[in-house]
Amino acid sequence: MTDRDRLGGGVALFDSGIGGLTVLRHFLEWFPGVSFAYLGDTARFPYGTKSKETILRFARDDVRFLMELEPSLIVVACFTVSSQAFPELPRECDPFPVVGVLEAGARAALRMTKTGEIGVLATEGTIRSGSYPALIESMGEKGLRVVGQACPLFAPIVEEGIVNDPVARLLALRYLEPFLTGHSRVDTIILGCTHYPPLKPLLEEILPGVTFIDPGLELARELAEKGILPTASGPAEQETHFYVTDSPDRFARIGQNLMGRPIGAVPSVLTLPDPPELARSLFIQKS
Amino acid sequence: MTDRDRLGGGVALFDSGIGGLTVLRHFLEWFPGVSFAYLGDTARFPYGTKSKETILRFARDDVRFLMELEPSLIVVACFTVSSQAFPELPRECDPFPVVGVLEAGARAALRMTKTGEIGVLATEGTIRSGSYPALIESMGEKGLRVVGQACPLFAPIVEEGIVNDPVARLLALRYLEPFLTGHSRVDTIILGCTHYPPLKPLLEEILPGVTFIDPGLELARELAEKGILPTASGPAEQETHFYVTDSPDRFARIGQNLMGRPIGAVPSVLTLPDPPELARSLFIQKS
Repeated sequence: MTDRDRLGGGVALFDSGIGGLTVLRHFLEWFPGVSFAYLGDTARFPYGTKSKETILRFARDDVRFLMELEPSLIVVACFTVSSQAFPELPRECDPFPVVGVLEAGARAALRMTKTGEIGVLATEGTIRSGSYPALIESMGEKGLRVVGQACPLFAPIVEEGIVNDPVARLLALRYLEPFLTGHSRVDTIILGCTHYPPLKPLLEEILPGVTFIDPGLELARELAEKGILPTASGPAEQETHFYVTDSPDRFARIGQNLMGRPIGAVPSVLTLPDPPELARSLFIQKS
Repeated sequence: MTDRDRLGGGVALFDSGIGGLTVLRHFLEWFPGVSFAYLGDTARFPYGTKSKETILRFARDDVRFLMELEPSLIVVACFTVSSQAFPELPRECDPFPVVGVLEAGARAALRMTKTGEIGVLATEGTIRSGSYPALIESMGEKGLRVVGQACPLFAPIVEEGIVNDPVARLLALRYLEPFLTGHSRVDTIILGCTHYPPLKPLLEEILPGVTFIDPGLELARELAEKGILPTASGPAEQETHFYVTDSPDRFARIGQNLMGRPIGAVPSVLTLPDPPELARSLFIQKS
């Protein structure tokens, strides 16, 4: 850990891999005066097929590293962690505030739905947790219905960068099948995994009457509206620090598709769990 | 670690996940008098998309655990480890002997090919390492040609248990494309990942004139022919000890398809890296 690593009021996000870059993308746009750190646990990707205990253990390693950066806010960009390990994290992160990605997306879906039937596409772990149905039902009125659909191969195909592809289409047709039939009244579907926003055009093509919610965008919007993060440009240049636990070149190469802009250089590689003093010098991208 | 964990002359295999069960399957059939331990690093699966450094680190954790079992032989059932980290392992495993899965498959392919053109289907990591072409060229005569093809989504679809499926077919058609054209003279293809044998019927249907080599079977055959492991039934019942680093239920459920028989009960869960004394009591399957 060096002085250059410290965020000085910036925001730290983490995800199991490159997927959380779809969240970072919105944060960079909404908060041009804020600097960011992004940790992708690419060595242990994916989280979504793993058990709750393992997800919690990995999340602890992730936040322990990020806390050393002294951020003003930790964002759990990973839906699998947000749905399975989130209750443990505020204590782990103390005194740093921490937010997950589930709530903002759920609130947006509740605003959008007319039929009261909401779909959730997510990893096996997120669906198994039942967090989304419980959350939406606790927020909404009686009579709401939440239909969860696990899409275990979506994250690997996005990591492979093959979203405009017959394989992606075939999987999408399969995973959307519960929403295709004449019986489905679902009019709003939450993209409940950071890896899914790049698939949104394909999903919209298959279900043209349905609104797809990107919770990363909704979270950025809420943090802006509530004044938790400033939307004004700052006096200093916005910096983004990237950290991965493996394969930085691959992260930079595939990640730029999810970020919508080049990552620009190779991120730092960390070994987790790892004493913070071993964190190597980092790459800083200036926007 | 308890006395029950110790293998007493048995053989220890490891893989990144459930894939190595396709190797264990052959070993159980060929060596009915030998007991086995199988470690699947399901918490950190997959290895095939990760860097050489990370693969070596994970492999070290795996063998350090297996050495505590005091096996007569350690089998690196994982092709990604065999191709990228194998040179380091004999020193790591000392004094326990260790064998990988590459060589036996390469020798079988050299015996089978008539055209001298051999294909290798494997993970990104195995292909990137160049180990198979180097190995085959070092074993064979001049003029051999080795065509490697990375199949990064084959392991996830096998882990998901969807091998008889249009998605598997579409991916197989894509990955076999270099061997489909009129120009290909490849007549022998090595299934260079433990996850691929369940896909063999599909691959044979797409390329009916090609011989597919299952290196796990070839390794068992070689160890039998050389008298390294006994093919006779032993005085005691054959035992198999299963260890995973995550999701034992999922391992048992999907693993039985790869084993060709029920796994029977939930394997023990380990945390790696982990002091051996923390290894929990294990499940022993009697054949």
